[in-house]
Amino acid sequence: MTDTQRDPRSARERLRVVIFDHDTPLGRAFDVGLIWLIVASVLVVLLESVADYRLAYGAWFRAAEWAFTIAFTVEYGLRLWSATSARAYAGSFFGIVDLVAILPTYLSLFLPGGQALLAVRAIRLLRVFRVLKLATYVSEAALLMRALRASRQKITVFLVGVVTLVITVGALMYLVEGAEHGFTSIPRSIYWAIVTLTTVGYGDVAPQTTLGQMLASLVMILGYGIIAVPTGIVTVEISAAARQAAGRRCPTCTVDGHAGDARFCRVCGAGLA
Amino acid sequence: MTDTQRDPRSARERLRVVIFDHDTPLGRAFDVGLIWLIVASVLVVLLESVADYRLAYGAWFRAAEWAFTIAFTVEYGLRLWSATSARAYAGSFFGIVDLVAILPTYLSLFLPGGQALLAVRAIRLLRVFRVLKLATYVSEAALLMRALRASRQKITVFLVGVVTLVITVGALMYLVEGAEHGFTSIPRSIYWAIVTLTTVGYGDVAPQTTLGQMLASLVMILGYGIIAVPTGIVTVEISAAARQAAGRRCPTCTVDGHAGDARFCRVCGAGLA
Amino acid sequence: MTDTQRDPRSARERLRVVIFDHDTPLGRAFDVGLIWLIVASVLVVLLESVADYRLAYGAWFRAAEWAFTIAFTVEYGLRLWSATSARAYAGSFFGIVDLVAILPTYLSLFLPGGQALLAVRAIRLLRVFRVLKLATYVSEAALLMRALRASRQKITVFLVGVVTLVITVGALMYLVEGAEHGFTSIPRSIYWAIVTLTTVGYGDVAPQTTLGQMLASLVMILGYGIIAVPTGIVTVEISAAARQAAGRRCPTCTVDGHAGDARFCRVCGAGLA
Amino acid sequence: MTDTQRDPRSARERLRVVIFDHDTPLGRAFDVGLIWLIVASVLVVLLESVADYRLAYGAWFRAAEWAFTIAFTVEYGLRLWSATSARAYAGSFFGIVDLVAILPTYLSLFLPGGQALLAVRAIRLLRVFRVLKLATYVSEAALLMRALRASRQKITVFLVGVVTLVITVGALMYLVEGAEHGFTSIPRSIYWAIVTLTTVGYGDVAPQTTLGQMLASLVMILGYGIIAVPTGIVTVEISAAARQAAGRRCPTCTVDGHAGDARFCRVCGAGLA
Repeated sequence: MTDTQRDPRSARERLRVVIFDHDTPLGRAFDVGLIWLIVASVLVVLLESVADYRLAYGAWFRAAEWAFTIAFTVEYGLRLWSATSARAYAGSFFGIVDLVAILPTYLSLFLPGGQALLAVRAIRLLRVFRVLKLATYVSEAALLMRALRASRQKITVFLVGVVTLVITVGALMYLVEGAEHGFTSIPRSIYWAIVTLTTVGYGDVAPQTTLGQMLASLVMILGYGIIAVPTGIVTVEISAAARQAAGRRCPTCTVDGHAGDARFCRVCGAGLA
Repeated sequence: MTDTQRDPRSARERLRVVIFDHDTPLGRAFDVGLIWLIVASVLVVLLESVADYRLAYGAWFRAAEWAFTIAFTVEYGLRLWSATSARAYAGSFFGIVDLVAILPTYLSLFLPGGQALLAVRAIRLLRVFRVLKLATYVSEAALLMRALRASRQKITVFLVGVVTLVITVGALMYLVEGAEHGFTSIPRSIYWAIVTLTTVGYGDVAPQTTLGQMLASLVMILGYGIIAVPTGIVTVEISAAARQAAGRRCPTCTVDGHAGDARFCRVCGAGLA
Repeated sequence: MTDTQRDPRSARERLRVVIFDHDTPLGRAFDVGLIWLIVASVLVVLLESVADYRLAYGAWFRAAEWAFTIAFTVEYGLRLWSATSARAYAGSFFGIVDLVAILPTYLSLFLPGGQALLAVRAIRLLRVFRVLKLATYVSEAALLMRALRASRQKITVFLVGVVTLVITVGALMYLVEGAEHGFTSIPRSIYWAIVTLTTVGYGDVAPQTTLGQMLASLVMILGYGIIAVPTGIVTVEISAAARQAAGRRCPTCTVDGHAGDARFCRVCGAGLA
Repeated sequence: MTDTQRDPRSARERLRVVIFDHDTPLGRAFDVGLIWLIVASVLVVLLESVADYRLAYGAWFRAAEWAFTIAFTVEYGLRLWSATSARAYAGSFFGIVDLVAILPTYLSLFLPGGQALLAVRAIRLLRVFRVLKLATYVSEAALLMRALRASRQKITVFLVGVVTLVITVGALMYLVEGAEHGFTSIPRSIYWAIVTLTTVGYGDVAPQTTLGQMLASLVMILGYGIIAVPTGIVTVEISAAARQAAGRRCPTCTVDGHAGDARFCRVCGAGLA
């Protein structure tokens, strides 16, 4: 402690490497430890929501909650202090999530019953992605992201079509089945249409007239075919992204998609760089 | 108003650009505004169908309905007037939808209870596709359409197979389970078979005998495999359509869709850049 | 009639063309007419199974049944008589289906209540595939068949894995949940496992203990991933079959997959045959 | 018997060929026979778990169990004796499974009620895979395994995303719906989220408030899109694995997996036949 106060600049830098850098052994250890802390804190929130456990171990859960909150508060403070730009960190996605994850415990001092808001802490689990970035996972995640982004427009067109279909079908079923069979309003009928088209099928609302069941059958078979569309889109994009990531182009004959171990073009036989 | 009457031809043309052209700033603004109006009118229909809201705000909903209907009627009139061919517009898909979307309100004057027909207005939401046409979405939608059209025959073969399977399985389950377990008729058994094969699984009808559950298990595993077929078909077609769209054009004979590794035009044999 | 008796051989041949040949106008008309007759006969069987309709129109249904049966019997006789080999026809798949489709009505004379067996007639609908063979559908169906046959071994491996998984999971859930929560026996637990893994999810059997729900969650996420396997297999095979059907090979440089309109190799520029 | 004792070494070797080699006629017969024995023993375990059958044929089941157990014990002993290394076999996956499959019957002598543990025997069915290895299935299974292993990292990234989503959504639904609508705790809400996202949809827990149903609809449509991701990943990997398996081998440097249009080896540059 006194050592860090004697040489504050160097301590801040060393801390920054530990907290924000994921490639040094210490930074890696810090990240992995933090993930386990987050997992533990989320587990406590989950278990506390079970009535039986809350009754039996309520005091322990409360204590653990405060321990985690203080640890995360210290971590937040250190991040603010050691970040190259405290403002940039505080405004970033993870900065906001880090702050939101500690607020509910403090709020519960003034707002009794605000405990439930602690569930927000689950969002902190997203930090796992940051740790995964350490490994080769980053390129895989990037590939998936690129594939999803590339198919963004096709998926938007698809979703608009699905929304229109779902509203139209919901309105029709409201007319056909009516309130006495559970289709009490058009929004509820739309909820049923989504439950059916996505093949979730709770069964809490289900058609009971013959006409309604025929219409529902049509929707199901349609949904069966429609589910193929996003799958096809994403598959093609992942394929393209993978090919792009893996393949090299021959400078002589411009043939694409040479494997990683290729030293000669497979079509013209010229050497590859 | 007096201005448009002084120079009717030019006003009609200017209006046509605003209403039918999606590339000018004014035309774009009109389209976007119209979409929001349609969304609002659909929301009113949805909310009015909820019993609680209808009791509390029924009069407001009625007023809003009339306001939307009048606005859409004016729009329909302007479209008819400014279209290059009023007949062509009135007979087009969107022309018919535009007309059908305003009729129920007028009909409700003579037919009390005809309100429910207003649900038809939801179909107007399809106009969103027209607005989306403004953007690059048009080519994506066209690509999806081309992929679906190209796989039309394969999907027909697939659907005929599914229908035969579903009828046969339905008849079998009717014999096996019988009316006392909810399979009251062959059509109802077919409904169950569709619910099962598409993996929706409401659970309103479910086999209860051991033999019935074994047959159902077979159908489920079959459905598991069968779901792969349309996905495979659509994926391959989207892939082909994407390759064609991405492909290069021959500068000599303008044939499209040359593969990435093509060095010579496949039709005229000229070299590709 | 007298005309056919005067020149029996020629009549038999002419009849064979009408019944077995699908390319002549008359043969096509016969096939289409037959399909409609089959559809009508199946509809009668479906409607008769509905209790209300059976009570109201029972006599009409019975009469229609006899009419269809006599028509199909005459058709069966004519097929036997006009086939190049009566034995070959009678032993073929469609020959057996044709016979089985008319037997239940005759049996119902001796066996009251044998009516339900008429449901077997639904299998005759498979004849639709024969009519579809007329069109270009045959090549599409053949392509799908080839793709499925090519992936037969992969799908077998996959199914064996699924069966083992389902038995193991079923046994585990039987131990975990027990009879009091609906898992009354291992076969019933296996039924639950299939319902869950295929994402059908009736909800007639559902885990209620925390451990059971955790195990079920694992199975669901596994099923989520497993569903990808047959889809991937079939997609790859359809893709291969489509490429093989569409593509030609350059005789000069052996590059595959030239489009249907290609006259020159896209890689070496040589002319294609 | 006396013959094997006269020439023990040769007998051990002959036995090893029968038990461990899958290519000789005798080895094949042994494997197929064993599989049928395993299927029969699993069937007995399944049927015994059905209360009605247990009451009626309990004694027979017990006898069959002992017969199977003794047969499997003898087989285990012979395997230990004839294996090249008894230690290696005993420590291998199948060695452990073989032992675990016979223990419960012996344990039931001391532990009454330990019968249920016999369900463990179902795991022995995995031995089917070994028999399938005889045929060309081995290369197909290896291809699937390679495809799954290659997509391991992408699937991990995907699963981490799904887990985070499921916890966050579960916590939100716990806040929105609350205990009175069946969402009694966050773990139970997470169970609901998994049931919904995987489109299983039991319906034992279902949202009842309007806000909850809107959130659920969002989750369903998300799940609809998300299901496309693993399918896309696996499809691309199976495609790559199949291409590599189908690819040609360079006669000069023996590198595998040349694409269909390759004319030159990508590693050594030599011409391919």
